[in-house]
Amino acid sequence: MEKLEALFDHIAARVNVNLKPMGIDVRPLLNNAIPRERHLLYYAFYALTEDHPISFRFTNSNLSGSYFLGKTQVDRSVLYKSDIRGDELKQKGDVVEFNGVKTKLFYDEVIRITNSFLVKTLVHNQSKNPEIPEVFRILNTVAMHYSNIHGTTTEGVYLGPFSTVDLSVMHNCVVGDFAYVQAGDLSRVNIEPGRIWLKAGDLFEFNYVYPEGVVDKYVKLDENGKLTGQFIEYVDDFKEDFVPIYSTAAPETDVIIPESAYVSPYAVIKGHCEIGENALIVQRAHVENSIIGEGANAQENCYIKNSIFEGNNVTAHGGKVIHTRNGKNVFVGFNSFVHGTESCPIIIGQDSIVMPHTIIDAEEPIEIPENSAIWGYVTKQADLATQCVSLDDLAKTTEITLGNATFKGDGMAFVKAFKHRIDHIREENGAYFDGSDKTRGHAQKTQDACFNILQPFQSGPEAGMYPTMTIGD
Amino acid sequence: MEKLEALFDHIAARVNVNLKPMGIDVRPLLNNAIPRERHLLYYAFYALTEDHPISFRFTNSNLSGSYFLGKTQVDRSVLYKSDIRGDELKQKGDVVEFNGVKTKLFYDEVIRITNSFLVKTLVHNQSKNPEIPEVFRILNTVAMHYSNIHGTTTEGVYLGPFSTVDLSVMHNCVVGDFAYVQAGDLSRVNIEPGRIWLKAGDLFEFNYVYPEGVVDKYVKLDENGKLTGQFIEYVDDFKEDFVPIYSTAAPETDVIIPESAYVSPYAVIKGHCEIGENALIVQRAHVENSIIGEGANAQENCYIKNSIFEGNNVTAHGGKVIHTRNGKNVFVGFNSFVHGTESCPIIIGQDSIVMPHTIIDAEEPIEIPENSAIWGYVTKQADLATQCVSLDDLAKTTEITLGNATFKGDGMAFVKAFKHRIDHIREENGAYFDGSDKTRGHAQKTQDACFNILQPFQSGPEAGMYPTMTIGD
Repeated sequence: MEKLEALFDHIAARVNVNLKPMGIDVRPLLNNAIPRERHLLYYAFYALTEDHPISFRFTNSNLSGSYFLGKTQVDRSVLYKSDIRGDELKQKGDVVEFNGVKTKLFYDEVIRITNSFLVKTLVHNQSKNPEIPEVFRILNTVAMHYSNIHGTTTEGVYLGPFSTVDLSVMHNCVVGDFAYVQAGDLSRVNIEPGRIWLKAGDLFEFNYVYPEGVVDKYVKLDENGKLTGQFIEYVDDFKEDFVPIYSTAAPETDVIIPESAYVSPYAVIKGHCEIGENALIVQRAHVENSIIGEGANAQENCYIKNSIFEGNNVTAHGGKVIHTRNGKNVFVGFNSFVHGTESCPIIIGQDSIVMPHTIIDAEEPIEIPENSAIWGYVTKQADLATQCVSLDDLAKTTEITLGNATFKGDGMAFVKAFKHRIDHIREENGAYFDGSDKTRGHAQKTQDACFNILQPFQSGPEAGMYPTMTIGD
Repeated sequence: MEKLEALFDHIAARVNVNLKPMGIDVRPLLNNAIPRERHLLYYAFYALTEDHPISFRFTNSNLSGSYFLGKTQVDRSVLYKSDIRGDELKQKGDVVEFNGVKTKLFYDEVIRITNSFLVKTLVHNQSKNPEIPEVFRILNTVAMHYSNIHGTTTEGVYLGPFSTVDLSVMHNCVVGDFAYVQAGDLSRVNIEPGRIWLKAGDLFEFNYVYPEGVVDKYVKLDENGKLTGQFIEYVDDFKEDFVPIYSTAAPETDVIIPESAYVSPYAVIKGHCEIGENALIVQRAHVENSIIGEGANAQENCYIKNSIFEGNNVTAHGGKVIHTRNGKNVFVGFNSFVHGTESCPIIIGQDSIVMPHTIIDAEEPIEIPENSAIWGYVTKQADLATQCVSLDDLAKTTEITLGNATFKGDGMAFVKAFKHRIDHIREENGAYFDGSDKTRGHAQKTQDACFNILQPFQSGPEAGMYPTMTIGD
C-alpha cells in the first residue's frame, strides 16, 4: 500500500501548510482515523442517468465507497465512503447572482476536490462561491467522520466529526466537532465545537453553543483520530446492514415503492416500511420499521427507525430520527439526533423546524408544538421553554435570548428564508411531482439511474488506489 | 435507444462496405441477432491487477457483458458478452519476429476494436500481425455467437457462430459457421461452414470438412440472425446460472480453492467440484460435478459437466466436455463438443489432442487411445478408424488421407508445433507454478484481481450506451 501511504503523506503536508498555524495538525488524524486495510474493502460507485451529464476525472486517488452524480474531478484525494453529488451543478451560460451582482458561467460547473481527505462526508454542491462560479472547490481540506460540506467551497479547512459547513465560502478555517456554520464568507475563523451559527450578512444572526460536556458525550475525537461518543456508537450498530448492498451490482428490495417515488438500491430498508408517493430515500440512508409519507425524503446518512413521517418531510443529511412521529412538513436539520424510545416517544407538530445539529435525547415523552423552531439540547419537555419558539413569535422579533441561544435581526426574514429553503429542497427532490416534466425532481429523475462500481487495486504497491480515469466527454 | 440503433446502423454500413462483395449482408444479422432490450441487461467489467497495465478507452460503444484485462480501445462497437483479454500484450521495446525478420515495438501494444459487432465472442491477443505490431486490430468485423478471435487481427471479417480464427491475419474474409482457421495471412477468402483448416506456410497443412448436414444439426443461423442447433440449445440451458454472479460485485463460492489455483468470481461452479493445485477456471466457464486436476485449466465459455480432468489439461475457449474422463495432459480444442452421457461415457487417454472444433457425440461408450489426435464427427468407437491417429504415426508421415481429412507436409513439425503450443498454454496459465516468480502464470497472477463493473444508461436516447471513458494513463 505504498502509494496510498504516500498519498496520505502528501495530503497531510498540503493541509498542514494552511492549518498548522490555525492550531490543527492533521497528520496523526489522517494516520489513525481509518485502519488502512479498510480502504481496500469498499467500492466507489457513480450513477448514470439521462438527466445528469456524466463527466468524471479521478487521478491518483482513493475513492472507496464514494458516490458521484455529475461533473467531478478528484485529484490526489482520499474519499472514504463519501457522497459527492452533482445534481445541482450550474451549466454553461447560466446566470448567477452573488450579492446583487450577476455573472454568466463560461463553462459547465465542476466539483473539484484536490489534496483532500473526506471520511464518510457528504459534499452537495449548490455553490455560493462568487470567486469562480464554474468551480466548486474542496481544496486541501480534511473532513472527519460524517461531516457535511453542503454548498460550501472550502480551501484549507478542517471539519471535525459530525460538523457541517453550509452555503458558505471558507478559507483556512477550523470547524470544531458537531459545529454547524452557515455564515457567508469566512477566513481564518476557528469555530468552537458544538456551536450552531447562522448569519446572513446584516439581516440576521442565530447563535447557540452547547453547554459544556454535552458535545463530548455524543462526539469525541482524540488527538490520534479515534472517534467515540453516542453518535458513532449509534451509527456503528447499523454498519453490517450496508455490507450486502455494497457488494451487489443491483441490490433488490422487498418494499413496495410507488412509481413516483425512489428508493436508492444503496439505501437500507429494513423491517416493515411504507413509502409514499413522491418520496425519496437516497443512498446510504438507513430506514427501519418506519413510514415515509407522501413527498417525504430521507437524505444521505440518515438513520430513521420506528418513526412516522406524515408527508412532505425533509430529513437532511445525517439526521437520525428514532421513535418519533413527525407531522406534515416537519424538517429535521443536518446531523440532528431526534432520539425517542418506546417508552419516551417524541411527537413533532406539523410545520415545525428541527434546527441543524439539534439533540433531542428523550428521557420522558416529548411533544413539540406545531409551527415551532427547536434547537440545542433537549431531554425533557421542560427544556422546550428555552430551546423552542413558535415560528410566528420568531417572525415578530428582532432580538431574543433564550438559554444559550441568541437571535438578532429580522425575524420575519429568518423564518421566510428557512421556510423557502425547505420548500426548495422538497421541490428539488420531487415532492410536488404531478406527472408533469416541470415538477420532476430527484425522486423521479433518479429512477432510471444505473450504477457503475469501481474497486481499488487489491495488492501490490497500488493496493487501495484507483486507476486514473476519465468518464464522459 | 436511438443512439444504440444508430450505432448498429453505423456498424452495418461500415462492415458491408467490405463484406457485401464477399456475399454477406450483415444488416439483417445485426438487426435480429439479439433483442435490443438485452443490451440493457448486462454489465461490462474489467479487472484491476498489479500485473497488467490498465489502459482502456471506450467511445460511443455498447459493451454489455464484456470483460477486459489490459490495454484496450473500443470505438463505436457493440461487444455483447464478449471477453477481450490483454494478458499477453507486448510492451514497448519488446523485439518480435515475423517470418524470420525482427522488429522492436515503439509503443506498448494495444487492442483496438472499431466499428465492430462481437457477440459472446472471445478476443485473445497473442498477435501475429507484422503490419503494425503495436496494434491488435478488430476492424469492421462482425463475429456471431461464440466465435473466437484468438491471436488474429481481423479487418472486414465475418465470423459465423461457433467459428474460430486463430493465430492469423485476415482481411475481408468470410468464415462459415463452426469453421476453424489457423492459416497465416488470408485475404478475400471465403471459408465454408464446418471446415477445419490448419496451415503453416509450406511446412504442413491439415484439412477437414464436416459431412453434409452435420454442422446444420449443431449450428444453424438463418438469414435473419436466428441461431438454432444443439450447441446453442446446450449452452442456453445453463444461462440462468450466470445471472446471480453477473449481478454481484464480488460473487463468492463454496468450493475449496487451493492457494496456487484461481477460480474467477465470474465462473459458475456447481454441484460437487474439486479444484487442484495450479488449476485455472476463468470467467464465463461453467463447471458442474467435475474434477479439475492439478495444473488443469478451463477457459472462457467452457462447459464442463460430470467429467474428470486428471491433470495439466487444457480446455480451450468454448470447449464443452460432458461425462468424459480426460487423462493427464489431454487437450480439448476450441469449441469442441465432447458429449458423453451417463450410459455412453467417453474416455480420452493421456497426452491426446482433441483438435479444435471436434464433435464427439457418443451414441455408445467411446475410448480414445492415449497420445492420439482426434478430429471431426465421432459418434461411435468405429468412427475412430478414420478420425483418430496416433501422434507417433502422424509424426512419421508426410501425407495421409483419412475419411474427410487430409494432411500434407512435415508430420513431425505438426506434432511438435501442437505439443509446444499446448505446453505454452499450460505455462502461461501457471500450471507449472512451483512457488517461484518465474513460474507464476494467470492462475497465480489473477488471484488479486478486482473487478470494476459498468452498466449502460437505462433510459432515454442513450439507453444501452456507455459513456465515453478512459481508464488508466
